[in-house]
Amino acid sequence: MSTTATAPHSPAEDDIEHIALDEDYVLTPGFVEKVVDAADDGDGVKLRSLLEDLHPADVADLMGFLTEQHRAVVVVWLPPELLADTLPELDDSIREEVLERVPHLTLAEALQELDSDDAAAVVEDLEDDQREKVLAAMPEVDRAAIESSLGYAEDSAGRLMQREVMAAPQFWNVGDTIDHIRKQGEELPELFFDIYVVDPLNRPVGGVPVSQLLRSARGTTLTEIMEPVNEITVDQDQEEVAYIFEKYHLISAPVIDAAGRLVGQITVDDIVNIIQEENREDILRLAGVADEDRGSSV
Amino acid sequence: MSTTATAPHSPAEDDIEHIALDEDYVLTPGFVEKVVDAADDGDGVKLRSLLEDLHPADVADLMGFLTEQHRAVVVVWLPPELLADTLPELDDSIREEVLERVPHLTLAEALQELDSDDAAAVVEDLEDDQREKVLAAMPEVDRAAIESSLGYAEDSAGRLMQREVMAAPQFWNVGDTIDHIRKQGEELPELFFDIYVVDPLNRPVGGVPVSQLLRSARGTTLTEIMEPVNEITVDQDQEEVAYIFEKYHLISAPVIDAAGRLVGQITVDDIVNIIQEENREDILRLAGVADEDRGSSV
Repeated sequence: MSTTATAPHSPAEDDIEHIALDEDYVLTPGFVEKVVDAADDGDGVKLRSLLEDLHPADVADLMGFLTEQHRAVVVVWLPPELLADTLPELDDSIREEVLERVPHLTLAEALQELDSDDAAAVVEDLEDDQREKVLAAMPEVDRAAIESSLGYAEDSAGRLMQREVMAAPQFWNVGDTIDHIRKQGEELPELFFDIYVVDPLNRPVGGVPVSQLLRSARGTTLTEIMEPVNEITVDQDQEEVAYIFEKYHLISAPVIDAAGRLVGQITVDDIVNIIQEENREDILRLAGVADEDRGSSV
Repeated sequence: MSTTATAPHSPAEDDIEHIALDEDYVLTPGFVEKVVDAADDGDGVKLRSLLEDLHPADVADLMGFLTEQHRAVVVVWLPPELLADTLPELDDSIREEVLERVPHLTLAEALQELDSDDAAAVVEDLEDDQREKVLAAMPEVDRAAIESSLGYAEDSAGRLMQREVMAAPQFWNVGDTIDHIRKQGEELPELFFDIYVVDPLNRPVGGVPVSQLLRSARGTTLTEIMEPVNEITVDQDQEEVAYIFEKYHLISAPVIDAAGRLVGQITVDDIVNIIQEENREDILRLAGVADEDRGSSV
């Protein structure tokens, strides 16, 4: 997940947001106009102050309201971290256009801020020569993560998963786990909802929901409070994965390789996107079938 | 949420599950046959041992494969807590049939195991006289929660939310919050993903993802690590709520009343159901339109 679970909207504290969005969380025409004016004036300081507190999803919406010329100005003034978080939110055609405008060093830096699944989705959209340059400018570990993700079939669990997971050995207790999370904070996924308990071969044997960890005394061992988990295999189709998430109301699930080892996790926000994507396909297919039927009945 | 984030499937530990489900998490014909045989024999002990480790979603699937007669036997032998968790998973027609068979005292007890949104959804389906009996047999606090939920318009956020939330005052730090959760454990939602920080009038001022709480030192105050939250109002339509969840990739969101006070929360698993429900409606509508078009073009 590239973005946080809670999006910025708190009128009392956050005036820009308050002006930017109406009560239905849609950008106001007045706000879009202000951005256009600042872009026309080439007023970078104004632009940045308008944009910096927006949620990436709102920046993406904004880009859809702007002309290509105005987008070109906005991209220059977006703070790099916000640019990174915005890329996965953009419509495909706008993303391609934006990617062509961002210098490859800026892009390489921005992608390091993303979880591996989101970074891979962006790299996938790059032209071959730009892709090479961007990957070459990234640290080995991030490059390897992206290349490994792109190595899985499209629409597979491997492509969907992020490699960042919170795993813990079977012999840890609640206290060990909390201490580890406090120490390793930065290297863990930005958000996580389950802690996967693994055996010495790194195979998941159970999961502990984060709220369950919080509820338990420090001395409790993880194996006492863990629950069975639904394992997803890297080569499973995303439709099957969505079925499992829906059926069991999962928030996250561990992904395993052919040897049963934990290699990543899938979170429900990715699944919401897939369900929407597939429903869109169903509707298009249905519309197509209806058209054909109509044709043949005339 | 009535069920846990992780569903039972761990072949090594759990032989019944392993036999019950194929690798795509679909019930095997062999397992269904065993249940039918045990029901025919009136072998309650066997039935219970077959059923007790199933996930509620799988019990619901199983009910769909059985005849009304076999379902009647199964309902008697389902452990009460599993029966409670299964009710919200059942198809409407089967749920109505099952509800007619369950004695009102059993039902009153089962419903107390559910979060308020799921309990209300079940009570809504009861016939008037059964509803009265069941509500009368419940403790005042649970009855009030259900009645309040049913007081909100259908398809509104108020109907969708659960009243159980984890809220904390602004002056608490991470240590205070963890200690409170350990002490209050049983009264909190079964699962939660965000802690809502509230002012003295119980109005949300921010949210702390549970993984963020875990990552922070005990002395950190919640206001230092909280993020702005997307507030949902009780009377918002569920379609709008789904839009906000999708757009901002939310896992949970606080629900407020007209005075801005925290009255509940909505979690993403409820949203997945709504998205599916609305897509189904879209598809039906589209199919209907296509049919009409066909009719007029002949």
